[in-house]
Amino acid sequence: MAKDKKLVEAITSMDEDFAQWYTDVVKKAELIDYSSVKGCMVIKPAGYAIWENIQKELDRRFKETGVENVYMPMFIPESMLQKEKDHVEGFAPEVAWVTHGGLNPLQERMCVRPTSETLFCDFYANDIQSYRDLPKCYNQWCSVVRWEKETRPFLRSREFLWQEGHTAHATAEEAEERTLQMMQVYADFCEEVLAIPVIRGKKTEKEKFAGAEETYTIEALMHDGKALQSGTSHNFGDGFAKAFGIQYTDKENKLQYVHQTSWGMSTRLIGALIMVHGDDSGLVLPPEIAPVQVMVIPIQQHKEGVLEHASHIKEDLKKAGLRVKMDDSEKSPGWKFSEQEMRGIPIRVELGPKDIEAGKCVLVRRDTREKIECTLEEAAAKGAELLEAIQKDMFERAKKHREAHITEARTYEEFQEAVINKPGFIRAMWCGDVECENKIKEETAATSRCMPLDDQKAISDVCVCCGKPAHKLVYWGKAY
Amino acid sequence: MAKDKKLVEAITSMDEDFAQWYTDVVKKAELIDYSSVKGCMVIKPAGYAIWENIQKELDRRFKETGVENVYMPMFIPESMLQKEKDHVEGFAPEVAWVTHGGLNPLQERMCVRPTSETLFCDFYANDIQSYRDLPKCYNQWCSVVRWEKETRPFLRSREFLWQEGHTAHATAEEAEERTLQMMQVYADFCEEVLAIPVIRGKKTEKEKFAGAEETYTIEALMHDGKALQSGTSHNFGDGFAKAFGIQYTDKENKLQYVHQTSWGMSTRLIGALIMVHGDDSGLVLPPEIAPVQVMVIPIQQHKEGVLEHASHIKEDLKKAGLRVKMDDSEKSPGWKFSEQEMRGIPIRVELGPKDIEAGKCVLVRRDTREKIECTLEEAAAKGAELLEAIQKDMFERAKKHREAHITEARTYEEFQEAVINKPGFIRAMWCGDVECENKIKEETAATSRCMPLDDQKAISDVCVCCGKPAHKLVYWGKAY
Repeated sequence: MAKDKKLVEAITSMDEDFAQWYTDVVKKAELIDYSSVKGCMVIKPAGYAIWENIQKELDRRFKETGVENVYMPMFIPESMLQKEKDHVEGFAPEVAWVTHGGLNPLQERMCVRPTSETLFCDFYANDIQSYRDLPKCYNQWCSVVRWEKETRPFLRSREFLWQEGHTAHATAEEAEERTLQMMQVYADFCEEVLAIPVIRGKKTEKEKFAGAEETYTIEALMHDGKALQSGTSHNFGDGFAKAFGIQYTDKENKLQYVHQTSWGMSTRLIGALIMVHGDDSGLVLPPEIAPVQVMVIPIQQHKEGVLEHASHIKEDLKKAGLRVKMDDSEKSPGWKFSEQEMRGIPIRVELGPKDIEAGKCVLVRRDTREKIECTLEEAAAKGAELLEAIQKDMFERAKKHREAHITEARTYEEFQEAVINKPGFIRAMWCGDVECENKIKEETAATSRCMPLDDQKAISDVCVCCGKPAHKLVYWGKAY
Repeated sequence: MAKDKKLVEAITSMDEDFAQWYTDVVKKAELIDYSSVKGCMVIKPAGYAIWENIQKELDRRFKETGVENVYMPMFIPESMLQKEKDHVEGFAPEVAWVTHGGLNPLQERMCVRPTSETLFCDFYANDIQSYRDLPKCYNQWCSVVRWEKETRPFLRSREFLWQEGHTAHATAEEAEERTLQMMQVYADFCEEVLAIPVIRGKKTEKEKFAGAEETYTIEALMHDGKALQSGTSHNFGDGFAKAFGIQYTDKENKLQYVHQTSWGMSTRLIGALIMVHGDDSGLVLPPEIAPVQVMVIPIQQHKEGVLEHASHIKEDLKKAGLRVKMDDSEKSPGWKFSEQEMRGIPIRVELGPKDIEAGKCVLVRRDTREKIECTLEEAAAKGAELLEAIQKDMFERAKKHREAHITEARTYEEFQEAVINKPGFIRAMWCGDVECENKIKEETAATSRCMPLDDQKAISDVCVCCGKPAHKLVYWGKAY
């Protein structure tokens, strides 16, 4: 029994030390391992399987909107990176430089892509000639490198996996439409699949992407009250097109610049899953994204008939379309329960000799720990029904948590007090001056997360920081 | 009409200049574009869609054998690369070196992975403790970099996409079994899905992978008679385990070294598809791998009812599970035919006002250009039937071509004459001495492709090169 408890005892309680709890879960749920390559991580099978499900579902949603996948080189020659002024300023300080190929120094050094706007632009400049070639809606799945000083698994690492979409359009309106469309695809994905409610909004000038005219974002709230930027969609206008000379001839045979967008989501989402849904027993995965949805755990499996009945249930669940596994290893049932909980598998089915005698089994929800008894025949239908309920309840619970962690601040004192005592989003008016943003960041460590699209009603008419007239409602918060 | 022919005329005939034909097809079928990043390519939607299908099918086959996907860092610190002597000698001359992170020089330079044996070993050394942790059967999908001097799209580029499997086992027998199993998975995939017949064999000492005890390979024959190594599977024995200290405690609590394998397939396969099946009109894709299997092309589409009937057929084909598209663009039918042929789409459906009046349509096979008339109602069933026939016939045709390009050589004169006049595989005996291999390579440019597993009957008892006693039958050939 002491051994059974080891797995759970090995993780810190989230109330005691949230950062340590996060690190413990990431490690004990076997999502990643630290690597000898400083600042990089090894994504283990349990972590990568979540990423595969994210990829599959996002990719399907992209393709439904007409997006095609491509692959660009991973290197960017220095001169190419420098073509767009704001962009290079934003990224040059944090790229990894390749200076030698084989035994010889390169004529021009190249960085490992931190993002691929410049590569897509270089490509589009040749590939786009006429209005008939537009729009181009390309995406790639790849890894990118940003030379961060402080790293945390999934949240900030020197290399991470992501997708980056890059589109080119004939008109500014079409580009803006695509920018908003992809933000919405991201928001729907987070809410429907990851059960994570998000705030959709626009970034301030200060916080937008290097080189973008507008950056839209979806912001999620973690269990500890910190925000996590979970996906961004940028409208570049014709800035990159002018820097790279991406022109097309329109129907009147006149040369025009294209209008571009880009948008990305990354393995950060796995960090969000952990920090929104996890608890002191480990990970809690929403059924839609869980690589394994049901774990069948036989009890006293050496006794006659137990494994047979357990296998039978497993097959029933599989036939019903559920992702199911059976743990018939030599470990004790208690240990198996702990593992299933740590890995966040939404349901476990317990089944021992007494249950079988009574023609029953027990389904246990990971999220609420509720135990549901049903007949062996009902197990598959009950399982499917429970998965649906879990998905819905997890979203509602996360939403309720978020609503409970939104505070309004009308004065700077209220703002400061909220940052200290009420972790979460702070709704407050802003005059639009970057100096107020800077002051707030310096003095409170909260940053402007976004100007929400769905919530623009002024809560006062003066800036929470400087007291001057203000029309913009901003969500502020500490962020990962 | 002149314009209609442009697409086809734009490619060189394969008999005239095979290398130029290859380059033309790769470009005109819109598989890739050259990049401003020297030696790297842009994989365009038509090329990437083929890779996605390869991934999907291979990944499914891997998982059926118990393989799990993971992701390792893309960088290898120099000291880690150097741990296994043969391995570093094989790869160090062709890696790209990262020397700076952001504005600062790195303490230790790192290369971009040319392959990830060292990273997996470094990981396994910590991850594997007991026999209970074995076997580990991990795979990753990623890109790798090898600083080649001369590059060709798909066949040899500085960066390419691949999968690399890395396994660790308790015993030498189990490792050898896994090595052979994965070679077989590769062979089945090539033959069943890509319709490419392969020779399964073992590499000679000279040709095996840097650091391997044994390398197994599958070798395919291109249309021009050159060989293409299409997939390799390596048995490392415990060499890497000793270099990296990967040990486990066995059931008797004794420390043992693990035995390892690795195996990989890459975007090279797309090069093989082109060079095995292509013709002077462009690409010819086997139905199993074709992103689009049927293109419906309406003729005189402005006339009443044509587009409606064409859409109807498209829906019928889709319902029958076929991957189908309709080309209702403003181009002429002749131009559309050329495009469908250039892109290698297995079947096109032609449908004009007269056909509709007669209640018929015409299906045209890409591989044989055979035209098959059928009623509108029969189109879906006929299409499915044809796809099956095309897949089978393409394999048989490729096999026949290969058989017709295997020559036996008993003397060095016969060997030299075959290299010049009968491009293809040369079956010849070899004494086992690397000097003969070197001499043959220097004097004829043919290399030992493999010692075939299915064909070991001696054709003479002396080495084709030196005339000394020989027991090994080797397939030789010029190769990509």
